Amino acid sequence: MTLAYDGTAFAGFQVQPRQRTVQGVLEKAVNQMNKGSNYVHVFGSGRTDAGVHALGQVIHFDLVNDIPDQGIVNGLNSLLPLDIEIKTAEHVSSEFHAQFTAHGKRYVYRVSHTKAINPFKRFYTGHYKYPLEIDLIKIALQDVVGTHDFSSFVAAGSQTKSHIRTIYSAEVKEVPQENEIIFEFYGSGFLYNQVRIMVAALLEIGSRRRPVHDFLRLYQVKDRNQCRVTAPASGLYLKEVVYQPDKLVNND
Amino acid sequence: MTLAYDGTAFAGFQVQPRQRTVQGVLEKAVNQMNKGSNYVHVFGSGRTDAGVHALGQVIHFDLVNDIPDQGIVNGLNSLLPLDIEIKTAEHVSSEFHAQFTAHGKRYVYRVSHTKAINPFKRFYTGHYKYPLEIDLIKIALQDVVGTHDFSSFVAAGSQTKSHIRTIYSAEVKEVPQENEIIFEFYGSGFLYNQVRIMVAALLEIGSRRRPVHDFLRLYQVKDRNQCRVTAPASGLYLKEVVYQPDKLVNND
Repeated sequence: MTLAYDGTAFAGFQVQPRQRTVQGVLEKAVNQMNKGSNYVHVFGSGRTDAGVHALGQVIHFDLVNDIPDQGIVNGLNSLLPLDIEIKTAEHVSSEFHAQFTAHGKRYVYRVSHTKAINPFKRFYTGHYKYPLEIDLIKIALQDVVGTHDFSSFVAAGSQTKSHIRTIYSAEVKEVPQENEIIFEFYGSGFLYNQVRIMVAALLEIGSRRRPVHDFLRLYQVKDRNQCRVTAPASGLYLKEVVYQPDKLVNND
Repeated sequence: MTLAYDGTAFAGFQVQPRQRTVQGVLEKAVNQMNKGSNYVHVFGSGRTDAGVHALGQVIHFDLVNDIPDQGIVNGLNSLLPLDIEIKTAEHVSSEFHAQFTAHGKRYVYRVSHTKAINPFKRFYTGHYKYPLEIDLIKIALQDVVGTHDFSSFVAAGSQTKSHIRTIYSAEVKEVPQENEIIFEFYGSGFLYNQVRIMVAALLEIGSRRRPVHDFLRLYQVKDRNQCRVTAPASGLYLKEVVYQPDKLVNND
């Protein structure tokens, strides 16, 4: 199932006791729909943090009673709160797993580039008030693409052993009529807070607070203390989870 | 002073006991900035209801201590919560009054035209799921322009005696990439809930639930019971308050 959610009012994706989470709200609705004696667990492609949004999160679950795809979409949308929207559902083989069979993920990060914070964007963008040279960021993004050790860009609390990941594409565009700059990263997978830490470093490069090729040094030093800022959760969107290996390269 | 606000978390503009209102939050900040012994009252161009937004609300107040325009903007933005943004400030003559010297107001109403509600737009648009013929709405909007008795379009609780108002322009446009249709109304002033009731009726016309020239009949019958639906507050934006009489016609 593919779904969108506004992360503002969720304590992240993963179930936590006494917290409103995406997974918790989904499991409640799926079990209301299923009406079975067995409790249905919902599995996501990965966690998103509190305040992080999704345009195309993917989840899977096993139903004993067969329900047509569109019936699942309509049924769940009528049961779910308005900050989650089921977009599509499809039956998959028993080998499919939302997390373990995913080949790539695409994240978007929106930055509102204005002096004062726009009241309508405070939950939906990050914010940067200093002048930016977008061409410097574009040069730095060439250093992001490829297979690198991202240890300088992982938050404490990460439970993965290897910090080596592959980024297939990394782009930035300006949307002047919205006073926004928008990053898009497409990669094999991302470490805890990796996109938000990279975006903060890229904005420092764009405002000449950090050397343009500093990522090359950061890959070597493997030290989070060299990259202390994390861009806010509000700007981050999980846009797409890719399951076809042949979609991994030259997707854009 | 011109300001924008996200109306979602406010119980409307006007001060009410034990409620978070735009006027209440503004008066608190203005009096923090003023540091005077006299309490400064803030006057708006008019009320907006709970959940209604503003892109260009206008307020005025009297300060004993003179502060430069940009100092007022920066000072208040640093004191105000993130859902209000002061955009501009200027010194005005003592004859100026945000409400009583206003000549016109411009309102926008955004409708999300999709089957399911988009989670990111639930607080920022109205929603209409039925097919719409935009050309029917455009024909009906020609009946809206002009001076009419809008008694069929005023909510109970209105305190004004006359329900006659003049609308200078009334337009609708489609934004297909956003799945939105956007109304814009420019007039001498609007009755309580008038825009929201008119939008609901116009959507009924666009989906052939109401005859295309029904507004002409509604002006005659002066009966709110013929127009029971009020489009939700979330789609309504006070875009501009106009104080120059020569801006009133052919503004677009």
